[in-house]
Amino acid sequence: MLKIAVGQAGGPTSVINASLVGFVDGLPDQTQIYGIMNGYQGLVENDLELIEGSGLDWLRSHKNVPGACLGSGRYPFTPDSITKAVLNLKERDIHTLVFIGGNGTMAALQKMSEAAASMNYELQTIGIPKTVDNDLSGTDHAPGYASAARYVSLSVRDISKDLEAMRNFEQVRIIETMGRNAGWLALAAGLLKQSEFEGPHMICVPEVPLSKERFLAQVQDIVKENGMATIVVSEGVTFDGDSQVQREVVKGRAVLGGISTEMERLIRMNMGMTVRSENLGMNQRCAVWAISDQDRTEAYEVGNEAALYVKKGMSNVMVSIQRNQVIGYNYKLKSVALEHVANDGERLLPQEYISRPAEFYSWLEQLIGDRIMRYPPMWRRRAFDDLIQHQPEFRRSQ
Amino acid sequence: MLKIAVGQAGGPTSVINASLVGFVDGLPDQTQIYGIMNGYQGLVENDLELIEGSGLDWLRSHKNVPGACLGSGRYPFTPDSITKAVLNLKERDIHTLVFIGGNGTMAALQKMSEAAASMNYELQTIGIPKTVDNDLSGTDHAPGYASAARYVSLSVRDISKDLEAMRNFEQVRIIETMGRNAGWLALAAGLLKQSEFEGPHMICVPEVPLSKERFLAQVQDIVKENGMATIVVSEGVTFDGDSQVQREVVKGRAVLGGISTEMERLIRMNMGMTVRSENLGMNQRCAVWAISDQDRTEAYEVGNEAALYVKKGMSNVMVSIQRNQVIGYNYKLKSVALEHVANDGERLLPQEYISRPAEFYSWLEQLIGDRIMRYPPMWRRRAFDDLIQHQPEFRRSQ
Repeated sequence: MLKIAVGQAGGPTSVINASLVGFVDGLPDQTQIYGIMNGYQGLVENDLELIEGSGLDWLRSHKNVPGACLGSGRYPFTPDSITKAVLNLKERDIHTLVFIGGNGTMAALQKMSEAAASMNYELQTIGIPKTVDNDLSGTDHAPGYASAARYVSLSVRDISKDLEAMRNFEQVRIIETMGRNAGWLALAAGLLKQSEFEGPHMICVPEVPLSKERFLAQVQDIVKENGMATIVVSEGVTFDGDSQVQREVVKGRAVLGGISTEMERLIRMNMGMTVRSENLGMNQRCAVWAISDQDRTEAYEVGNEAALYVKKGMSNVMVSIQRNQVIGYNYKLKSVALEHVANDGERLLPQEYISRPAEFYSWLEQLIGDRIMRYPPMWRRRAFDDLIQHQPEFRRSQ
Repeated sequence: MLKIAVGQAGGPTSVINASLVGFVDGLPDQTQIYGIMNGYQGLVENDLELIEGSGLDWLRSHKNVPGACLGSGRYPFTPDSITKAVLNLKERDIHTLVFIGGNGTMAALQKMSEAAASMNYELQTIGIPKTVDNDLSGTDHAPGYASAARYVSLSVRDISKDLEAMRNFEQVRIIETMGRNAGWLALAAGLLKQSEFEGPHMICVPEVPLSKERFLAQVQDIVKENGMATIVVSEGVTFDGDSQVQREVVKGRAVLGGISTEMERLIRMNMGMTVRSENLGMNQRCAVWAISDQDRTEAYEVGNEAALYVKKGMSNVMVSIQRNQVIGYNYKLKSVALEHVANDGERLLPQEYISRPAEFYSWLEQLIGDRIMRYPPMWRRRAFDDLIQHQPEFRRSQ
């Protein structure tokens, strides 16, 4: 009888459970499915649960639910713990290991595969892609990203709309997004922008160096022109090559966050205007209302495809979404070597998307799927220009 | 010919434009409608626009759009500026003034009314209620609140769901809501909670005194019991009677915010666990996807009712939502004296809702309107209890 172990690792997304359900649905009847609890930690600590009967119903009921129903989490792998993980699988005679995750998860899966080989234990390993940051190599995009991008673009549009009405009280809003070292999520903030006047007026991504001097000058110009500025910044952005702003380091992993607060402070110190920073927070990766239908469909499909790979006996591979360069939205699922994914490392925004965001938005729009209501244009009028003259004097930073 | 001036004041909500459209739709044909730009500032600075023809179409196209399409904002009224505002209306021969706003707006409208009377200028004044904080007197609730409450309850449920999966990485999340001195929005966070185990596990409102000692002890107990804690705190909460945490003071108005960061620091200093705080931010008052259908309907209706009051010649009144205490959801619109609203001041959470939240939730549920998907229950299992034992030691704060 086929026995498999499946786990979810890294930060959850709003569609990672859809991938799990897609995977389980694709397995042959009678497969013994072991759920690995809390990511790699469960594998190392031998915390697996046989999921059957009502347990399977329970699992399937999470298709549309955010979070990771098996428990996910982060766990620092050591050579000893890898060996232990292989032995735990061996104890149960499980020869198939499947993980849903991002870069770290795929690298760990590759290590598991190598360790098993060196221990002469036959182990089939398959990765299912997942990340809100979209920094996973070997795939056009990863499930989870489109829903997070949809959240960011809707939020930034509405927060900017709100600011339009409050220009006599506050002039600058800085909105921080997730993304780690990549600007995919931050750049998505501009997807619904319809005119120059509307926010976001500036998007800062880690791929483009930023100096404090240039930043302040740009903010000044934007507020002079519009009476307000909505600025979006990715958590991984740094000023003048400084190190990234971190909340704290947990289990060896830096939790980024705080660059928007730094920008707020900088503007307050150097310019006489009211500024507010905010972090879009965990909602980016879990807000159920923001889920892109297309994203959820693809999340399910990559899971289903992984089940097919199990049956075909493929190993050391990750399911990849390959997009066809034709009109409309077409893609097919293919396997890529885990080794290739692990070696390529973080996937950053390509230069062409940074220099020509319109190309990026036409790529992104298809992933967002369902139609989003367009807002009427802002009414630019005389009185509005008067308001700008009410703005305090600007002082260039020295 | 009837001439009226209408404005929007204070922080926008996601349905304040629906009230404006409801009002305009209810006016007799041929009414000359002057839009007051940017709240009371436009009235004092004589910045009014005659809205007609395509301008009216443009205005009506905002029925489902967040923000305040005439411009809103905050403006500190002085006796001189009130006189100036009356003179500006007189110059155009406008005898009807309507504002959509909260406590401050109603108090200002009352002052306008008194000033006009003392200047022997006939002025009809009508207020349309609006606030996300729900701290407005004289009405069961104010449009804007239900949509914000819907945002808070959905967000807290999903962020808590995400934390369930990450307990081996982080244990505490503190989520800050709007609300100023009232706990209406924070308490809404528990609306979708289905079991003790699920978040939110603690809700702190300004109406209930809180000591650091007690707070830390409760967090410790919650994490011991559940392996995690989702804590919701209203921006107006203080520890041990301290003053409220402010971002900054703009035009004499304190912008609250930061208590969640203080709580995060406190936990990090006193307990060996990972904690993250976040502020739900401006999305609470502008996220279009979170709008409650019922709220938008009522926002439109109170606007429409105000137009009826104009025709009836009523003055010095605010439209109020009066709820019938019968099964199901029934309400009627009535007028209340502006003076009554202004004198009653901020409306805080009543004691019965604090001691019996279930009563509050059955009151709130009707306002949220549309059905929200229920999530499957969390699977409480042995391995989960093991995980709790992995938690670091807790130290009671001294």
